[in-house]
Amino acid sequence: MASEDGQKAGGAGGENEGAEEMVVNPWEVAVKGGGKIDYDKLIEKFGCQRLDSSLVRRVERLTSRPAHVFLRRGVFFAHRDLEEILDLYERGEKFYLYTGRGPSSEALHLGHLVPFMFTKYLQDAFKVPLVIQLTDDEKCMWKNLSVEECKRLARENAKDIIACGFDITKLSSSPTLIMLVGKLFGCAFYENMVRVSKCVTFNKVVGIFGFTPEDHIGKISFPPVQAVPSFPSSFPHLFSGNDNLRCLIPCAIDQGCCSRIGYQKPALIESSFFPALQGETGKMSASDPNSAIYVTDSAKDIKNKVNRYAFSGGRDSIELHRKYGANLEVDIPIKYLGFFLEDDDELEHIKTEYGAGRMLTGEVKKRLIEVLSEMVERHCKARAAVTDEMVDAFMAVRPLPNMFS
Amino acid sequence: MASEDGQKAGGAGGENEGAEEMVVNPWEVAVKGGGKIDYDKLIEKFGCQRLDSSLVRRVERLTSRPAHVFLRRGVFFAHRDLEEILDLYERGEKFYLYTGRGPSSEALHLGHLVPFMFTKYLQDAFKVPLVIQLTDDEKCMWKNLSVEECKRLARENAKDIIACGFDITKLSSSPTLIMLVGKLFGCAFYENMVRVSKCVTFNKVVGIFGFTPEDHIGKISFPPVQAVPSFPSSFPHLFSGNDNLRCLIPCAIDQGCCSRIGYQKPALIESSFFPALQGETGKMSASDPNSAIYVTDSAKDIKNKVNRYAFSGGRDSIELHRKYGANLEVDIPIKYLGFFLEDDDELEHIKTEYGAGRMLTGEVKKRLIEVLSEMVERHCKARAAVTDEMVDAFMAVRPLPNMFS
Repeated sequence: MASEDGQKAGGAGGENEGAEEMVVNPWEVAVKGGGKIDYDKLIEKFGCQRLDSSLVRRVERLTSRPAHVFLRRGVFFAHRDLEEILDLYERGEKFYLYTGRGPSSEALHLGHLVPFMFTKYLQDAFKVPLVIQLTDDEKCMWKNLSVEECKRLARENAKDIIACGFDITKLSSSPTLIMLVGKLFGCAFYENMVRVSKCVTFNKVVGIFGFTPEDHIGKISFPPVQAVPSFPSSFPHLFSGNDNLRCLIPCAIDQGCCSRIGYQKPALIESSFFPALQGETGKMSASDPNSAIYVTDSAKDIKNKVNRYAFSGGRDSIELHRKYGANLEVDIPIKYLGFFLEDDDELEHIKTEYGAGRMLTGEVKKRLIEVLSEMVERHCKARAAVTDEMVDAFMAVRPLPNMFS
Repeated sequence: MASEDGQKAGGAGGENEGAEEMVVNPWEVAVKGGGKIDYDKLIEKFGCQRLDSSLVRRVERLTSRPAHVFLRRGVFFAHRDLEEILDLYERGEKFYLYTGRGPSSEALHLGHLVPFMFTKYLQDAFKVPLVIQLTDDEKCMWKNLSVEECKRLARENAKDIIACGFDITKLSSSPTLIMLVGKLFGCAFYENMVRVSKCVTFNKVVGIFGFTPEDHIGKISFPPVQAVPSFPSSFPHLFSGNDNLRCLIPCAIDQGCCSRIGYQKPALIESSFFPALQGETGKMSASDPNSAIYVTDSAKDIKNKVNRYAFSGGRDSIELHRKYGANLEVDIPIKYLGFFLEDDDELEHIKTEYGAGRMLTGEVKKRLIEVLSEMVERHCKARAAVTDEMVDAFMAVRPLPNMFS
């Protein structure tokens, strides 16, 4: 896996449950008081096993060649499940190798070459595919390096890795494959995700989104995904370098806060919330299909839901209703008509008559049922005409006409 | 931005600094005690402004068409920087629209259609490009839905969105573009990242990697990036569905812990750390070029560094050295020769003679300087032969020969 630095030794103190005097994680190796690294403790901490000489001899036997110096001399001294790998290799089954590097500096030192020299030996000895991942994004996040600098370093480091003897011509002649996965390369969208993620601490997303330490990291890392399309540089094919192009986002008022995590603020036009049938103070429930009208509802469903569940601002009896009129402030049929009845004059008329008690809830609901049924029927017809090919066409990663040319 | 549910109303209580009785974030809208949503407080909390009738009239004037019902009736009631957008539109400059949806359910309800109906109006009225992002990954992370189910729902929801009247033929005739970005679609690598991220809490990565709440979310979300290449299903072109193919990772012993966050454990073959010139207990310092030999060092650099900085296990005087011999346990030249001197017999000879005091530090360092200079020179020659075209070839997203065919 990508290593911060191949050259690790004791240093400033620190504590860790597994190995009391050592701090060892992928970014730090330190021993309290400058003591020696206790590899037996590390083996225990990381749940692996000693790679003993009988296993080295088995590797030599299976590959019909002497073990690499690093194996013979115990540089590679521990393993997990290596015996299983050798078992399946012996049965003629395949496996693959994966290694990588986080390109943090231009010049590699000898410690950086060690894993690639050894990987080259393993690939040659076992004739297996190899995936090399250059985590250019990692160094952008850990070090104070720009995206551009990380991309440049990844290319430079790739040359050093290739120089270790990996051979792209093997691609066609044998199953010995090599892939360099530089994730940032050529993906403007991902580059912007990295730029945004670097600017947002866990504490900040807790403040905005209410996450807890028990939330999984998929949630915690998600907000930048929503922020990034508001940067035109995420879509170079579409906007061809016009990176100051403004973005306008139509959204509900609670959704604009995603844009607070970006470094570049889009313009917003924000809606109120669409209320549940049971009313604006009723409890929203995704598990209650009667709290909303779905585009898949039949005319009968719509009639039933509106009549039974739509919260009414009408009074308890016809007498009281005629006397006081409906409370339009809480009446859901009126609110829904406000969204979907296009005729301003008719809406005004209904509100006046209903508010004065001359129109009854049943009449207003009847008109709402007409409006919703017609709208849902229209939507269903339009949806039935949408083919899978149309979906593919919209979704395709496709060359886009340049709006600026 | 993608909304959990367009249908939001008061519900179970909660607290929030900005609006004392309301909890409002992209995934929850709740008012303590079932009260009404206070939109004025939300405007304050989210730092936006009322969209007043003079602004609506300006939109009508600029677009030469009546405002949409949702605008006339205050469904879209707030904004940020909308005036700036109208200013630049008036000057003949461009902008673009961005909206989206997290596809969480098969059937949309009417609240879900509201932003798309309004976006369609804005696009038609201003004739601007539109980016619609379907965050299929979002729902996979927030709800207990599988990756496969999220992909299916995204396609189904895409049909409903297209049915709102968006027109792909506009792609060629005007700058009115539509993109549906279903990020999971067709990207096996990303799908696996989502699967892994769902299984790892913030607390877990704190335990393994030592993150703090002040760390940015780029770091916190990074570990799955390193785990995912160890799943063969991340590379369908290479391994064509052989998803049980075993993976072997050569790495330093501290790096294998990344694999602890995955749901499928790769085999590991693990090395000790490559020591600093100053010794295994010396402090590693990336800022000190004298703590390591770089592949860019000249023969003179190498000679100088080894002679001046390589920690010696030799004794303080020749007399003591002849009497007691070198301490091989701490001697860096011996350790480096162990990595890079291929001849086992010669290495054994040097260790015996040096350990017995018959060989002096200077002689051992001289041999090490030869070995390292030759190795670095060989690497530099190989690297100089690596062209940019070769780097491109290794990095290319390319059809790969199927190792199983």
